[in-house]
Amino acid sequence: MSDLLKKVTRPTLHRGLEGVVVDETELSVIDGEAGELRYHGYRIEDLATGADFEEVLHLLWHGHLPDAAEYEAFTRSMAEERPVAEGVLDLVRELAAQDAEPMAALRSAVSTLSAYDPEPDADPEDLDAALRKGRRITAKIPTILAAFDRFRNGAAPVDPRADLGHAANFLYMLTGEEPDEVAAETFDMALILHADHGLNASTFTAMVVASTYADVYNAVTAGIAALAGPWHGGANQDVMETLLALDESGEDPVTWTKDRLEAGGRIPGFGHRVYEVKDPRAVLLQERSEALAESTGDRKWYDYTTSIEAFLMDEQALGERGIAPNVDFYSGSVYYQLGIPIDLYTPIFAMSRVGGWVGHVLEYQANNRLIRPRARYVGPEDQAFVPLAER
Amino acid sequence: MSDLLKKVTRPTLHRGLEGVVVDETELSVIDGEAGELRYHGYRIEDLATGADFEEVLHLLWHGHLPDAAEYEAFTRSMAEERPVAEGVLDLVRELAAQDAEPMAALRSAVSTLSAYDPEPDADPEDLDAALRKGRRITAKIPTILAAFDRFRNGAAPVDPRADLGHAANFLYMLTGEEPDEVAAETFDMALILHADHGLNASTFTAMVVASTYADVYNAVTAGIAALAGPWHGGANQDVMETLLALDESGEDPVTWTKDRLEAGGRIPGFGHRVYEVKDPRAVLLQERSEALAESTGDRKWYDYTTSIEAFLMDEQALGERGIAPNVDFYSGSVYYQLGIPIDLYTPIFAMSRVGGWVGHVLEYQANNRLIRPRARYVGPEDQAFVPLAER
Repeated sequence: MSDLLKKVTRPTLHRGLEGVVVDETELSVIDGEAGELRYHGYRIEDLATGADFEEVLHLLWHGHLPDAAEYEAFTRSMAEERPVAEGVLDLVRELAAQDAEPMAALRSAVSTLSAYDPEPDADPEDLDAALRKGRRITAKIPTILAAFDRFRNGAAPVDPRADLGHAANFLYMLTGEEPDEVAAETFDMALILHADHGLNASTFTAMVVASTYADVYNAVTAGIAALAGPWHGGANQDVMETLLALDESGEDPVTWTKDRLEAGGRIPGFGHRVYEVKDPRAVLLQERSEALAESTGDRKWYDYTTSIEAFLMDEQALGERGIAPNVDFYSGSVYYQLGIPIDLYTPIFAMSRVGGWVGHVLEYQANNRLIRPRARYVGPEDQAFVPLAER
Repeated sequence: MSDLLKKVTRPTLHRGLEGVVVDETELSVIDGEAGELRYHGYRIEDLATGADFEEVLHLLWHGHLPDAAEYEAFTRSMAEERPVAEGVLDLVRELAAQDAEPMAALRSAVSTLSAYDPEPDADPEDLDAALRKGRRITAKIPTILAAFDRFRNGAAPVDPRADLGHAANFLYMLTGEEPDEVAAETFDMALILHADHGLNASTFTAMVVASTYADVYNAVTAGIAALAGPWHGGANQDVMETLLALDESGEDPVTWTKDRLEAGGRIPGFGHRVYEVKDPRAVLLQERSEALAESTGDRKWYDYTTSIEAFLMDEQALGERGIAPNVDFYSGSVYYQLGIPIDLYTPIFAMSRVGGWVGHVLEYQANNRLIRPRARYVGPEDQAFVPLAER
């Protein structure tokens, strides 16, 4: 094996795959310099203010916004798929009793959904079946999450209501009360804003899984697993915990932030691998944060975030270094103002991003190629084996 | 956004990441031209015939083969971790009752294990904790699988036996009877041979998940999801189903194979993206297939496989085209001769490959970099939004 090391050594090491193009997509495009995000060519601002989450799912999965008849059929099929099997609820109840992390509960419950799928023998290469499975999963995730939160609070799950949209129905199942219009619209917008964002780690994970023709349950379960990581889906929770620490201190937000930075602490929610300017999703969520503040009469959280942003961007000169608020900086306080428990922020991210996962899986499988990279071997070349008894 | 398409267009598209080096590793190296595979510098032949699966796990996770004291401590800790929580068994029973696919049951049960982990608050960057979690999962997978198979056959699970090795204990839990030496050794060798193999799709999936600092439960659950795909872990099952079809026909294996190819059918178990010659694991499993044939007195399956291989390699000239038997071509019939149900072959692959998944996760996280590639946007550049009511 004298030439082995040479043979497997290749010139470029792409750790993190930064800048490596692995696929062509029609789903979304990010202009990190301009701070623009589009889904299938539509500006995120237009979709966020003019469409609902179901329309955006239709766009990501079918390649176009639905007309009236398509919208009616699509939303009805989504609403019909909301209930989950008793066996899934049993698992969710047990995991709530075990005080499981919400992402672990969601991952496990979504994984078990496959056992109740009405098309267990679908051809793995049948993309229509894959779309139906993806739609079922997407419809059921809110039901699972709301049930988990109610179980752990000693309450019974609230059955889904087919007359409510995806966003409003989740808030209804979570609280047992129909949300007001500002809350429902804000949550719907948050779902739209998080639905797709190129090949982030969870979307890429779903694609790698799908490239083996494992079904959509496998791909989405794996996507949830990746999103659970603190370097990916956990950041909005970090932001809110930081804001709560500030609130607890009773100090002025700028003084507090300055002290924290001087003490070596950090402020989460700034910087993104693909944006050099303010994340367009942060702009939209900041507006919703203000709308919520006006609706509830409590401007505290909105003021904290805007004060910190202004201080960091100008006085700390983050802006000059190309670091700006990302989506997580505003989503945390928006969810908080909606009354959503902090440890559900990442699962809510999954509730939205499943749209992108399913969309990218369908797109990739339509022109599939097994994803199998290489590693450069840097270990010992040739070790002589010695049996255990002689070691 | 006039320059957007230009900005996101990059020269090379790496679909499938073929030949793209994404990491450095000390775990395993494959010489596809020579048909060599080494774990940490040790020839796979030496490990397969001189070590047991637990020694190989120690090698992959700790970077060296254990001495006597390390072996004693490692095997004891593995044996102690075999039992699973009652809640996990409840889920496995329910999934067996639902006639779930074994890989779906394994994926779901492994996912729920995190809720019972004794270190739920471990720092995600603590690699020692990650190793302990990986060891727990690896120890429990055979218990889950054997219980699933027994539940679906209406039998009660058999408790693990701490005095048996990993391989022998699985066969014991599956059948309720202690396996003979040939069976235990063969199964142990099969586990060793499948434990690691570079950055195949499931190992890479586990790494992408781990790159977000999601914990090992997330990484392994996602690895199982990828392995479930028919283009990855499902191939040995395909081989066995092909051999059963041949057996059913009552025909001569060469005639049958010739007819099948002429009718446009294919023979699974040949060809591999990284081997140009016979997979060294296939060589070893072929020997075990013969040993099993001698042990049971039934040479049928061994003869089928060797006859088909000789025909395809020589008469069909596959060998000249660089296509040769892969590991799946012989593992299927070996498992069949061990009396293992065909739909457990892929889960057994997971039972072994979890060693590589955990090893690569530990290695990658020791020098972590979030994995986030790019896609080239090829969709519509700028679509004017029209509200639903006007579509």
